[in-house]
This record gives sequence, C-alpha cells and structure tokens, in this order.
Amino acid sequence: MKVGELGERALVKLIAELIECTAVLCPGADDCSAIAYGDRYLVVTTDMLHKKTHFPREMSGYQVGWMATAATLSDVAAMGAAPIGVTMAIGIPRDTEVAFALDVMRGCNACCAQNGTTLLGGDTDEHEELTLVGTAIGSVDQHKMLTRAGANVGDIVCVTGTLGIAAAGVRMLLDSRYADNHFRESALKKLFEPQPRVIYGQALADSGAVTALIDTSDGLSLSLYELSKSSNCGFYLQAAALPISEEAKSVSEDRWDELTLSIYRGGDYELLFTARHERLTAIPIPYTIIGKVTESGMQLDVDGVIHELRSEGYEHLSASGSSV
Amino acid sequence: MKVGELGERALVKLIAELIECTAVLCPGADDCSAIAYGDRYLVVTTDMLHKKTHFPREMSGYQVGWMATAATLSDVAAMGAAPIGVTMAIGIPRDTEVAFALDVMRGCNACCAQNGTTLLGGDTDEHEELTLVGTAIGSVDQHKMLTRAGANVGDIVCVTGTLGIAAAGVRMLLDSRYADNHFRESALKKLFEPQPRVIYGQALADSGAVTALIDTSDGLSLSLYELSKSSNCGFYLQAAALPISEEAKSVSEDRWDELTLSIYRGGDYELLFTARHERLTAIPIPYTIIGKVTESGMQLDVDGVIHELRSEGYEHLSASGSSV
Repeated sequence: MKVGELGERALVKLIAELIECTAVLCPGADDCSAIAYGDRYLVVTTDMLHKKTHFPREMSGYQVGWMATAATLSDVAAMGAAPIGVTMAIGIPRDTEVAFALDVMRGCNACCAQNGTTLLGGDTDEHEELTLVGTAIGSVDQHKMLTRAGANVGDIVCVTGTLGIAAAGVRMLLDSRYADNHFRESALKKLFEPQPRVIYGQALADSGAVTALIDTSDGLSLSLYELSKSSNCGFYLQAAALPISEEAKSVSEDRWDELTLSIYRGGDYELLFTARHERLTAIPIPYTIIGKVTESGMQLDVDGVIHELRSEGYEHLSASGSSV
Repeated sequence: MKVGELGERALVKLIAELIECTAVLCPGADDCSAIAYGDRYLVVTTDMLHKKTHFPREMSGYQVGWMATAATLSDVAAMGAAPIGVTMAIGIPRDTEVAFALDVMRGCNACCAQNGTTLLGGDTDEHEELTLVGTAIGSVDQHKMLTRAGANVGDIVCVTGTLGIAAAGVRMLLDSRYADNHFRESALKKLFEPQPRVIYGQALADSGAVTALIDTSDGLSLSLYELSKSSNCGFYLQAAALPISEEAKSVSEDRWDELTLSIYRGGDYELLFTARHERLTAIPIPYTIIGKVTESGMQLDVDGVIHELRSEGYEHLSASGSSV
C-alpha cells in the first residue's frame, strides 16, 4: 500500500507506534519529548514545515524563518521549559531569490533573540520545495515540568491571549472581501509571526498552580482533546468566557462562525492550561478563565445550552501537517 | 539573483555569516555547535538528507533511516561527546510504500539503540521528495570536548578504521563491471549503514592525548583542510601509511586511483585526529598513524615525492549537500 492511500494521519500513528524511546516522555506523548539530565529535564521537539502547507506566497522570507522557529519554541514553552537553543535545516529551491533565502535566516535569528535563545546549528540544501525543519531544546526543573497529564476534576481551564487571530488572518488572506479590513495587517502579521509564549510557559511552571499545559497551535478544541486523553478527564467550556479576538469578530458572519474560528482553527500559539482554583493568585501572567475540568465528556456551553465539543481542528494553513 | 545562479556553496557561506549565535561554538565552526550547560557542554548538530543526493534506489528504508541517524551521531562523536538523543523529521512522498516508510523508522531506532541513545522527537509530513532531517544532541565534560582547533606542530595525525570503503561502494553501485566484485555486498552495506564512531569519540576525549578531532564524512583531504583552518597549521601525510580498505583496493585501477578513493572521497564516517606523540599510549582504541602536524602547507608524500594535497572532496553520493 502507498502512503497516499493509507493517509497521513494513519501513517503517523503507525510510525509513532514504532518509535523506540527510553526517555521520560517519548515522541508523540506531549509537545516535547523529555529526558532526565542531571536534576533537570531536557525537552526536545522538531517540526517540519514546507511551502505547500505552511508558507503562502504572501509570507516574507523573514516570516518563514520566524514561523519555523516560533513553532518549535512554542512547544518548549508548553513544557514550562526555558529554551537552550534551536537548530534550523533549510531546503531551498534553485529559483529562490538569494535575498529571500537570507531573510529566512534573519527571521530565525530574530525569533531566537526575542525569546532569549540562540541558533545552535543549521544545514542548507538545495531542495525541490522550500522546507524548514526546526528543532528546539529546552530545560526545566524536574519538579516543575508541565505536561498534558495532570489535570484534576475541579481545576479551572485558562488560556493566554486571545483566540482566532490566525484563523481570521487565513480568512482575510483567502477572501478578497476582507482586503480593506481594519485588522487585516495586524492579523496577517500575527498569523505569519506568531509569538511563542516562552516567558509565560516558564512563569506557569514556576507558579506551582498549574496542573497541565499545552499550546493551542492545532486549535483550542484539539488541544483540549489532547489534555483530556493525557489527563483522563473531561472538559466544560463556556463560550461566553472565551477571549475571542477583535480580528476574529471582524470577519465572522455570526456567533457560530466566531466560535468556529476561535475553537476549531489552529495557528494561535497561545498556552492552554488547567490550574488549582485555590492557587490562581500565584499565576503572575495575564490569562482568561474559560471553563473547568470535569470527570468526562467534552461540553461547550453556548448561552446556557450544552453542545458537544467536536474533535476538530486545523493546522492554520492546511490540514496536512502532523507531528508525532 | 536566484539561489541556483549564486551556487549552493556561496549561499551557505552567506547564510552562515548571518547566523547570530551566543554559544561557545557556533554553527559552521565545528562538527557540532556547543553551549555551556552546568559544568558540561551540550553539543548539537542537524543534517538534512534527501533522495536526489543521498538515497539511491538501492537503499532500503531501513538504511535510509540508519544513515540519517548515523550522520548526526558521527558529528556528536567528532566532539568527543556522548549522545543524549536524536530527533528525526521525515518528509514522505505519497507514492512511497508504507512498508518502506515504516522501515525508515526501524532504521532510526536501530542506529540509536546500537549507539546507546534514543529517539527524542519526530515529525512526519507528506513531501514531494523523500527528506530526512536528523538532529542529535550530546554532552561532554567542558575540559574534555575536542574540536577542530588545537592541533600543534609536531602532533601526529591518526585515523580510525580504513579509508575508501564508501567511495568503493559508490563505484560498485554505478559501474556494472563490479557487479560480481567479492567485496560488493560488504562495501554497499558499509556505504548505506555507516557506523558512527560514538564510543571511539568518547574514548579519545577521555584519553587526554588528543588535540583536535573531526569526522571524515566529507573525505580525508577536506577534513584535514578543516583542521588546518581551525588549528592554523599544516599537514604532512604519508601515502604509504594510509589504511586503504580492501574494498577500495579491489576497484582501483592503479596506485593513484586507490589514493583518490581514500583521500578525496567522502562517506566513510571515520574519526581523524591529532595527538601528542608522548601520550599515544593513553589512546585505548585502534587507529593508524598517517602523518604529522606541520607549521604550514598541505603535503602528501607518495613514495618519497612530495605532492600538494588538494582541497577536494565529495559527499559520498553527490557534491550538493553542505552543512553550515
């Protein structure tokens, strides 16, 4: 059977099952793998991005480099870890402008520097399709590392920042009706240059209040499903509490559309976490309470009516990328 | 200007110059980058390999996975470091057999396990061309790390294993005259499943005798040129002392051809090092003395006649891959 017939999700699952790993957290279990090193954990993650599914032509080289770097750093942040360094392998087609290729590297540099880390390796190769593979390494106190497991019934559910900006940006990109949208420029900038929540992640780990943590790059709903699977719990989500972005509101047709952009679309790179109610004051960063941890079930409360939260999400520019 | 017009080597150079790095050893300076972590160095390296230049159709999926893993582990070995883990991003075309794709992962697993390390992350993506990006992390005592710098005039030059096996394998692969060659099977196995010298690298670091270290994946001559550049020295190489492999001898047309395969072709993944003469007995691994460190010049002594060692080498299956 060919890979194309089997489908990528099924292939990723088969490959993930084959991976032999002796670490504390193995590939596929969380945003990063983790391995003991002295009294700390090293956390590691790798992301392959390429033109067809991640880099629309509207992105500058700088933004391509930034995004590939940010995607890996967001995974480090989602463990509560501090980044140590990033490696970036770049496959470049022959017909790429040299200036664009150099801009890619400037974007990598800038994203590392703004997040207090450094490039630790690179490789450049001629390639059919523009391809970036970023790998980030971080480190965290063994007692502080936050994973997807650990949410307890009664914990509250919180998210940083606002929701749906990336999805709004994708809509503005694809639909000419939004060419003059007031938020277009800012939404595209946030879509193409996401800010990994590196400082927030470490603050959450230090707070001692957080029980489980994940980033929202695959969308809020899919991220909740991952927490549910790892923590063996359910979730109750209150639609009225969601910090829906101005950008998402500005391109939404109605209330449901607004919720779809905020819950079922990815690309936002915020942190989603569960926390002990009595320790909330220990959390030193801005966040919004959006729900609570339950025994089972995935509930979305829209104006008093309970709906089933669907296991649906998208990579921000395509459904095809899948990490194991 | 387009990347194809500029040429890959020139592009790699421009990109390398742009990399901002705050580490002890930055990308491009050595086989790995290195960053201080506690009282040790973490060393990191990334390699992008793809079908057109690295994976001929005669390679099994297992061998593709093995080679991508081995290439990164060889770079860790070349710092005298112990591997901590490997991440592997795999881009797979839709028309790949699923069995082949799974075999790739088995090859990664096997190479990690045989070198005492583990997979620490992965990503799988549909891709136009089979592409593997391996990143390896290692760790070494700060006082023991071996780099390309450090060779001193009077040091002897040594190499592990034998030379020219990979080059002989490429010749057997491309030339049907060698279809029945006695060494064909073993040469292709060594070409496709190179053994990174992970244990040797650590033993050399522990010995206290070694002054500079590099792997020979780009060929003996290019590796000597790298040592020369980093250590600011010259080399005298004795052709009669080279441990030329039986495989290389079996496909060579004459003495010069044999030397070409052993000196100017890559893919062997042996360790090349310089060492203090008076401390040679502290080196606990098998090696061959092939020359000595001089003040300047790159000399090749062939039967008493001094030739200029040319700055010439090849990736084992193509000239196109270039690490920064």
